[in-house]
Amino acid sequence: MEVEELISNSKVLRNWPSFIIGLGLIWILKNVFYKWSRGPQRYTLENREEEEEDLEDLEDELQPALEEKPHVPFVPGQNLNPNGAERFYELMGGRRSIRSFKSHPKPDLSIIEDCIRAAGTAPSGAHTEPWTYCVIEKPEVKQSIREIVEQEELINYSQRMHKQWVTDLRPLQTNHIKEYLTDAPYLILIFKQIYGFSEDGRRKRHYYNEISTSISAGILLGALQAAGLSSLVTTPLNCGPALRSLLNRPINEKLLILLPVGYPKDGCTVPDLRRKSLSEILVTF
Amino acid sequence: MEVEELISNSKVLRNWPSFIIGLGLIWILKNVFYKWSRGPQRYTLENREEEEEDLEDLEDELQPALEEKPHVPFVPGQNLNPNGAERFYELMGGRRSIRSFKSHPKPDLSIIEDCIRAAGTAPSGAHTEPWTYCVIEKPEVKQSIREIVEQEELINYSQRMHKQWVTDLRPLQTNHIKEYLTDAPYLILIFKQIYGFSEDGRRKRHYYNEISTSISAGILLGALQAAGLSSLVTTPLNCGPALRSLLNRPINEKLLILLPVGYPKDGCTVPDLRRKSLSEILVTF
Repeated sequence: MEVEELISNSKVLRNWPSFIIGLGLIWILKNVFYKWSRGPQRYTLENREEEEEDLEDLEDELQPALEEKPHVPFVPGQNLNPNGAERFYELMGGRRSIRSFKSHPKPDLSIIEDCIRAAGTAPSGAHTEPWTYCVIEKPEVKQSIREIVEQEELINYSQRMHKQWVTDLRPLQTNHIKEYLTDAPYLILIFKQIYGFSEDGRRKRHYYNEISTSISAGILLGALQAAGLSSLVTTPLNCGPALRSLLNRPINEKLLILLPVGYPKDGCTVPDLRRKSLSEILVTF
Repeated sequence: MEVEELISNSKVLRNWPSFIIGLGLIWILKNVFYKWSRGPQRYTLENREEEEEDLEDLEDELQPALEEKPHVPFVPGQNLNPNGAERFYELMGGRRSIRSFKSHPKPDLSIIEDCIRAAGTAPSGAHTEPWTYCVIEKPEVKQSIREIVEQEELINYSQRMHKQWVTDLRPLQTNHIKEYLTDAPYLILIFKQIYGFSEDGRRKRHYYNEISTSISAGILLGALQAAGLSSLVTTPLNCGPALRSLLNRPINEKLLILLPVGYPKDGCTVPDLRRKSLSEILVTF
């Protein structure tokens, strides 16, 4: 049998029991060393985001990211009462996502700034405020963003997106051509910060950074509506790294949402959608 | 040598080349079959959430989840102009997370309903509206929720949470005792729906359900502030399954956020925090 000839001609195969025992020892040592070098793995919701880069831990000198100061009395802020909740619902109920924007008139940058100030009041895990808002008004930067997004979206629609997804988007009449990226007077790119840095330059964990940044984006939508501005929440698939690179954002920031902001084009239409009724989204106990 | 004796006494070990070739064949067949049974894996942001249960795909009869209808003219909604953005910022700038609530006065349920109506105006991936709001006012249900959360939080603080996390929370003076869960007149539990069902009972993908639901939660915070109500955004670690079970929510719903809602206790204090300035969160291009 040829296999047996092969075995008798090979030192490794002839001494296979010792060889296997040797391999076993290497495997055991590798595992022990690997575990020792990584330290204990604890369950946190952030684990999935820490896959790329482990955070340094100097457990012998733990300092909270925030200063420890005495608490202060709570002072109630403004409200919209009487009927504040109802009036807020009426305000937000008029919001619609639009997909065609006119370039003029261009709202003053100070209005966009106030909207982002409002977004910055969002709560965040351990008050880490893990968001960066990039506001684009230069036409050439908008053009570069459009090129990156359209290139990726063409691949998304034709290859990466599941057929059901493409089908589900059909009633919204979207495709990979994104005129709004150059038409809209402003683009807002919202980055979530996976981690941050404390004053002494040490890395600071950003707990629940995606949830916190999305909540902040929700407040931004309220501010835009209050200002009479329209927008479109988009999450361009696979464009994050190229856009982060274009805008020179650091490696700890990841693109979460891209919003064109402005006024609708004359004759702008929207999908004939209805929203779920209260009884479809609310359960009381 | 004892190993050699062992080998000559064992059929498997004596015929090891055939045995290894057999194992190799089984491994190759297993992999081919596994790939074939799963179909091609496409990259989507939702992959991580589909790990638990693959969605059924009937690609030969794809229907969009929404009806395909002609688009309708966009009608602008209300705004808060003049100075709408500034006024909205002033409203939201007064919001603070509080941790001590008084049981009375209890706001009317209709106010909470209006806040959730507002939250339901949030945009969502392919208009899937992937959220369920559970509002708890019955004392016994609040008590059960508190027991579940405190039990898990005790383990979280002592074992699951990373030491740095516990340290970062120290300035907020939190621990596993959550009096607000029974003191606050309302608890709102926000579930994200990982998938939904179309009218013919088929499963419907919910794209970006966590981002959409968090945006909705951001709008809820605006509505609560407009109503003069205070809250606290919490993400109780590892309590989701027990709370979902307590409230009889279906398997496609996962707890994202738990908010106590009400008025602050007299003498309520808050951490002496500052928010990042605009220049720390905004970059213009």
